[in-house]
Amino acid sequence: MAAGDEEQGFRPLDEASLVAYIRATPALAASLGGRVDGLAVKEVGDGNLNFVYIVTSDAGSVVVKQALPYIRCVGDSWPMTRERAYFEASALREHGRLCPDHVPEVYHFDRAMSLIGMRYIRPPHIILRKGLIAGVQYPLLADHMANYMAKTLFFTSLLYNSTTDHKKQVARYCENVEMCRLTEQVVFSDPYMVSKYNRWNSPLLDKDAEAVREDDGLKLEIGELKSMFIERAQALIHGDLHTGSIMVTPDSTQVIDPEFAFYAPMGYDIGAFLGNLILAYFAQDGHADEANDRKAYKQWILKTIEESWNLFQQKFLGLWNKHKDGNGEAYLPAIYNNPELLSVVQKKYMTGLLHDSLGFGSAKMIRRIVGIAHVEDFDSIEDASKRASCECRALDCGKAILKGRRQFESIEQVIALVQSVTQD
Amino acid sequence: MAAGDEEQGFRPLDEASLVAYIRATPALAASLGGRVDGLAVKEVGDGNLNFVYIVTSDAGSVVVKQALPYIRCVGDSWPMTRERAYFEASALREHGRLCPDHVPEVYHFDRAMSLIGMRYIRPPHIILRKGLIAGVQYPLLADHMANYMAKTLFFTSLLYNSTTDHKKQVARYCENVEMCRLTEQVVFSDPYMVSKYNRWNSPLLDKDAEAVREDDGLKLEIGELKSMFIERAQALIHGDLHTGSIMVTPDSTQVIDPEFAFYAPMGYDIGAFLGNLILAYFAQDGHADEANDRKAYKQWILKTIEESWNLFQQKFLGLWNKHKDGNGEAYLPAIYNNPELLSVVQKKYMTGLLHDSLGFGSAKMIRRIVGIAHVEDFDSIEDASKRASCECRALDCGKAILKGRRQFESIEQVIALVQSVTQD
Repeated sequence: MAAGDEEQGFRPLDEASLVAYIRATPALAASLGGRVDGLAVKEVGDGNLNFVYIVTSDAGSVVVKQALPYIRCVGDSWPMTRERAYFEASALREHGRLCPDHVPEVYHFDRAMSLIGMRYIRPPHIILRKGLIAGVQYPLLADHMANYMAKTLFFTSLLYNSTTDHKKQVARYCENVEMCRLTEQVVFSDPYMVSKYNRWNSPLLDKDAEAVREDDGLKLEIGELKSMFIERAQALIHGDLHTGSIMVTPDSTQVIDPEFAFYAPMGYDIGAFLGNLILAYFAQDGHADEANDRKAYKQWILKTIEESWNLFQQKFLGLWNKHKDGNGEAYLPAIYNNPELLSVVQKKYMTGLLHDSLGFGSAKMIRRIVGIAHVEDFDSIEDASKRASCECRALDCGKAILKGRRQFESIEQVIALVQSVTQD
Repeated sequence: MAAGDEEQGFRPLDEASLVAYIRATPALAASLGGRVDGLAVKEVGDGNLNFVYIVTSDAGSVVVKQALPYIRCVGDSWPMTRERAYFEASALREHGRLCPDHVPEVYHFDRAMSLIGMRYIRPPHIILRKGLIAGVQYPLLADHMANYMAKTLFFTSLLYNSTTDHKKQVARYCENVEMCRLTEQVVFSDPYMVSKYNRWNSPLLDKDAEAVREDDGLKLEIGELKSMFIERAQALIHGDLHTGSIMVTPDSTQVIDPEFAFYAPMGYDIGAFLGNLILAYFAQDGHADEANDRKAYKQWILKTIEESWNLFQQKFLGLWNKHKDGNGEAYLPAIYNNPELLSVVQKKYMTGLLHDSLGFGSAKMIRRIVGIAHVEDFDSIEDASKRASCECRALDCGKAILKGRRQFESIEQVIALVQSVTQD
């Protein structure tokens, strides 16, 4: 624990002390229907960073998440500010206000304890990544995610807000800089250099990892994206919108864990989601068996990628058109009141956003294969050689998208590329 | 005066109360050699925003600048935060630390009074714009400004700083949002719409002003630049680096008035300087007479534009190479340690910066002809028709650069375009 934590009122909870904490905290007790005797507590944090408890009484439930002053999956050798919990709670509240259908409510936040109490997203919700590995189709996923991304990104951008409101929020989230730096390191830097944190399917992918570290074309592109990620305060992004941050049933989609939230390019969120769907696509051959060749499922993933972007675009432009005479200061109605002009402006904006999304999305694909944090989509393929084959194709695809992203004019062209990357 | 100003300790000074203030302020008295009897005070604020006093004793001198809570040239109908003085003092100190040869020292800053005491830039220094109108050559101008821009922009960017330091400063300067919004309005919005603040050489330029307001191609470009100006925190820019913010002698170049400073694209400063030199170029035909056809002077201006960019590029890359193994987080040495790769990265960076500079520079040209604040370069041409001819060519040139900026690969190509815009 960092020096001074105790003085600041912080203490890491365990299951016993958590129960005492809940009993002393009216907002948490209320979420349990006031029935705080005989609570069931289960630690379920399978992520990389935090401790997460599901607490149930016979009259209610709550999730309690506590940030510790280091990265859980690495240990206290990698310190990490507990203030990430503050930004997570802030982003959950802000995104929840904008898109309540897809964000859990925050019941309680204790800044000194870096502790968030929020709605328990009940079974049969599972982590989307696990559903994708199991081959489950989610017919509403594209529509829900398009809705979530369109609302959270549009309403926190200059298309909707005044510069004054925008800069105020930008300044506030600048303080989440440690999380920004963590992303810089693990997404934009480590995979392209020798780093003790990198790992890959060795020795099968040794040459591929080395090729990434020696590819000047990739390094040129990733450098531009890195600066854009840090410098460009376009909207309040989730900051870690992969398929492990989304919980689903066939009817419901819930986005969790926005502790990396800050003002950054919109394409980082869109790319994280689409890139992780592409990873899931390439993992399918590793999950195919005699009972299920996964061919239909691969088509469903591709259709979901296509629909996610196209519906996002449709909803985002719908919001833009609806609010074009509002307070947004990017495109003033007195200048852009000509429908033909506005349509050209929007087309250019969306094409730029597609290119950004493809750049960030492919960067996320690459880092999941040769960087520190891998994905269960591939890790759950037991045969190392089969796994390597899937990973190689995903890596090749990611590299091609990163280098060629400005050539794409539609998501259909991206999907054609994904389909063209065949087993060698 | 805004409500509450007096409670906050603010009172606008006049010459008499200024003397009393100086006598009570040791840092200011010291700049006058402690000789505070019989001070000579002269109000010289010829800018658009503030009151500026030159104070001299028989043993020293000082400039005292006070911001009032409105825009001086418009009056109290256009309120403007006095906090701009805080950001001006901050930027003078920061840029002065980085480039002391070209920035006046701040002796004293009083936040409550919105008052800065700084070095008096003595005669024979004059405002560069006046020198350009008079046809005076400044052989060191390009080198000095290249030096100023390279140092102030490089050392406040991610090429030199850690993300942590960068975001901290970005957050701080986000509060200068009112000045950012003023720029948005007068540079990126008003010239492209009907606005009571716009003015132009009427009726001669009526059709030209209308053409700007109806040019969809311009509006598409200006919209992108506006969002980039607000969103992209690339470096601590001066924010108003036109030829009226620079004082010169043949040996000395001093940059003043950075009250619009915030973290924004570097190209905004570079473009402001280059764009105002191009305006000066197009004004020369209006200043030509039988004694001096200004042809040689026009060539000197073009050479100065060329050298300013080329020397800036050389010095900026020199700083980058010198500090490439330092703390800057944009391009880590472990990734970009290959000279060939670094050279490709730098070439792409500088080409992007040229395009940004041309975009912002041409936007500044256009707004000086059809927006609220004009330039003395043109206004001092007495013959309205001759003035209109000069303005039209500058406007045509600005429009061509704004629309075609991504085609230019060198400053020489830009100069060829400037020379090709002939009188019609």
